[in-house]
Amino acid sequence: MRIDHENPAVRVRRAPRGLPAVDDFEVADVGVVPPRDGEVLFRGLYLAIDPSARRRLPAPAHAPDHGPLGDRASVGDVVVAGVSPATCGLDGAVVGEVVESRDPGFAVGDLVRGGNAWQMFHTVPGRLLDLLEPGTSLSSELGILGRPGLVGHVGMRLIGRVRAGETVVVSAAGGGVGTVAGQIARLAGARVVGIASGEKAIHVVSDLGYDACVDRATEEVGAALDRLCPDGVDVYFDNVGGAVSRAVFDRMRSFGRVVVCGMAAEYNAPEDDTGPPWRPVLRKRLRIEGFVVQDHYADYPDYRRWMVEQLDAGLVRHREDLLIGIEHAPTALANVLSGRSRGRQLVQL
Amino acid sequence: MRIDHENPAVRVRRAPRGLPAVDDFEVADVGVVPPRDGEVLFRGLYLAIDPSARRRLPAPAHAPDHGPLGDRASVGDVVVAGVSPATCGLDGAVVGEVVESRDPGFAVGDLVRGGNAWQMFHTVPGRLLDLLEPGTSLSSELGILGRPGLVGHVGMRLIGRVRAGETVVVSAAGGGVGTVAGQIARLAGARVVGIASGEKAIHVVSDLGYDACVDRATEEVGAALDRLCPDGVDVYFDNVGGAVSRAVFDRMRSFGRVVVCGMAAEYNAPEDDTGPPWRPVLRKRLRIEGFVVQDHYADYPDYRRWMVEQLDAGLVRHREDLLIGIEHAPTALANVLSGRSRGRQLVQL
Repeated sequence: MRIDHENPAVRVRRAPRGLPAVDDFEVADVGVVPPRDGEVLFRGLYLAIDPSARRRLPAPAHAPDHGPLGDRASVGDVVVAGVSPATCGLDGAVVGEVVESRDPGFAVGDLVRGGNAWQMFHTVPGRLLDLLEPGTSLSSELGILGRPGLVGHVGMRLIGRVRAGETVVVSAAGGGVGTVAGQIARLAGARVVGIASGEKAIHVVSDLGYDACVDRATEEVGAALDRLCPDGVDVYFDNVGGAVSRAVFDRMRSFGRVVVCGMAAEYNAPEDDTGPPWRPVLRKRLRIEGFVVQDHYADYPDYRRWMVEQLDAGLVRHREDLLIGIEHAPTALANVLSGRSRGRQLVQL
Repeated sequence: MRIDHENPAVRVRRAPRGLPAVDDFEVADVGVVPPRDGEVLFRGLYLAIDPSARRRLPAPAHAPDHGPLGDRASVGDVVVAGVSPATCGLDGAVVGEVVESRDPGFAVGDLVRGGNAWQMFHTVPGRLLDLLEPGTSLSSELGILGRPGLVGHVGMRLIGRVRAGETVVVSAAGGGVGTVAGQIARLAGARVVGIASGEKAIHVVSDLGYDACVDRATEEVGAALDRLCPDGVDVYFDNVGGAVSRAVFDRMRSFGRVVVCGMAAEYNAPEDDTGPPWRPVLRKRLRIEGFVVQDHYADYPDYRRWMVEQLDAGLVRHREDLLIGIEHAPTALANVLSGRSRGRQLVQL
């Protein structure tokens, strides 16, 4: 097969300060790399935008570099998603269709998941790609049936160990992970209170079955939690860090669990030097636990099978926020980081 | 039996500010209360001094009251140990000998554990007393074979889940809990580094088998840990809180566990408003978990059986710091809180 398409990509034009701006990026043709033995060339159809992509962008001079998600890009590099490119397909930020294969496990037309660059055509070793079965929504393979869904499952069930009757708070409740995490808690029989902004605070209650949601745009989080969770919080699924997390932490009940899943509020800023105090950790027997979903990929097949059943039974809903055209990937990232995305943020390529 | 002894007790003379001083207390005769049906009168032989007793002392006006260990005493009250008196014998701060019994389960001369008041004679319901078997050191029933030992076991094994080959740091390493916790980690095959002051830093290495110990009196904790734990810390058994804990936290390895067991550095001060940052919790997949040993009393019989075997086999050592005379209980408390005690702090009555 002869490849004569250009290959548009989003490159870093300069190191962003704080929230990345559209001007920090530029679109360029990076060319198509012909596959070698063992490699597959595929055309991306959807690109997922994770908040952690922020951490791979170049840092201003002298800023500290924080792992474990890999090195930062340099100015002039194509943007990569938050996860290292040398990992398995579940880490991938792209789903697409094979256009040329030199790996016997893949044929032209196959649907695959993998690759992390913000570009149209991807040439990667076949061993780093997931072969997708037809029959589910392709874009959901980057969301509720992909890594964000597994994040919600691992955080809420394996780390948070949610139980029926407990009160659960999910921050960034309207995002790609939060929407799944909250619904998993609801299915476990918990009372679920979200924290989100504006329309999303309504959406998670009316469409996803959250019992209530704090609207950060109009309510003081602590006062709203006092009203919505008068007996305190058993599980806090923390996607944001910062002041919101402090407000929830101060309202944890005895034997409560804080699942540290993301720190979106801090990705644009220097790392905080302090956090909530530890004496309540002792007094209330709290557990604060961070996790990185890559450590739990062995659980993916079971999770996927279970979640497909929930979706088929209509017990769970998913939502995507779609921008069309790779040139809008920087806007999509800014939307994710500022909390404007509604559900899983994708770019259609 | 006719009781004609007086009953000396230590009462609160005024609310201490910061580290309690001897002048904050007074000795008085509180009289002996004759036992009613179901009650036992016993003469205390040893009184254990826990740092948590500090939290039961009256607070200066307008200071917040923090649970869960029960209400504070008032000026004029007899001092009580840190644990609520209405609990089982393992909570007791006293071991002694029965002098009169109106509970059929106890006879004159029996050895018992229970009671929490800083006084010589105790009249308590028999159901709140442990009947001790003769044959072990009586004072060890308040230490390595009592609650402090169980604290070390629960914290290091059940919460910390120490594994062979890991690096463990224990603060207040020379205290009643630390000496047990470190030896349990050593028996599990871990490398154990203590943090203690002066002579205790030598003792835990030469007598208890710690691999090394930071001497807080002469070394900067962070620099010493960089030297003694160059690859970081897997399990931190935290007895102190404050600046020492921050130094260890900053050196935790990925998948590390912080066992929040005590906050001795903070008991004399207002509760800290902040603690270590949470972003490393995510990045390094840390677990920070507090526990209260009363939630784990069901594990005591197994622990006790196992520890008696270790003691009999000479694999574990214990150490007591003894002051003689109930009038020295306030000094003993100050010693515990300031880290001067060498091993489990007891007062012989």
